[in-house]
Amino acid sequence: MQDKEKTRITVEIHGHHYTIVGTESKSHIREVANMVDEKMREISVKNPMLDLNKIAVLTAVNTIHEYLKLQEEVEQLKEELKKLKG
Amino acid sequence: MQDKEKTRITVEIHGHHYTIVGTESKSHIREVANMVDEKMREISVKNPMLDLNKIAVLTAVNTIHEYLKLQEEVEQLKEELKKLKG
Repeated sequence: MQDKEKTRITVEIHGHHYTIVGTESKSHIREVANMVDEKMREISVKNPMLDLNKIAVLTAVNTIHEYLKLQEEVEQLKEELKKLKG
Repeated sequence: MQDKEKTRITVEIHGHHYTIVGTESKSHIREVANMVDEKMREISVKNPMLDLNKIAVLTAVNTIHEYLKLQEEVEQLKEELKKLKG
């Protein structure tokens, strides 16, 4: 038995259905799915010849890129906090 | 003409080749591609029946989820900085 109850939700991303199981709220999972859907649409509009696989992989690539940029921001903010706290 | 020179690099992600064009350095693009490759491998090991599409979409879903968590951390750090600065 786990402490957290599992959420099971089916979302639609880029015309396909996916069942997501996790400990997050349904609204959070829907928000995430909508963001992925939106990013896949952006990429497919810019590259209409790409197949679904490539669109999905490039979506993951773009997201990791943005994640790394945000991680740099976190490091800078932590550094700034450290200096202020002495 | 653009100020920044475009980088064009072919990377291998989960057994397929992708040409990535962008303004980032080749080493950054390689790092991103390696992270996507690693995440796709983790998901496919846990779910050996999934096809490439689903693995890639779920990789994007997981990454966006982690991105949103990191974004919350950024907000908290900014809030803390604001308080310290008065």
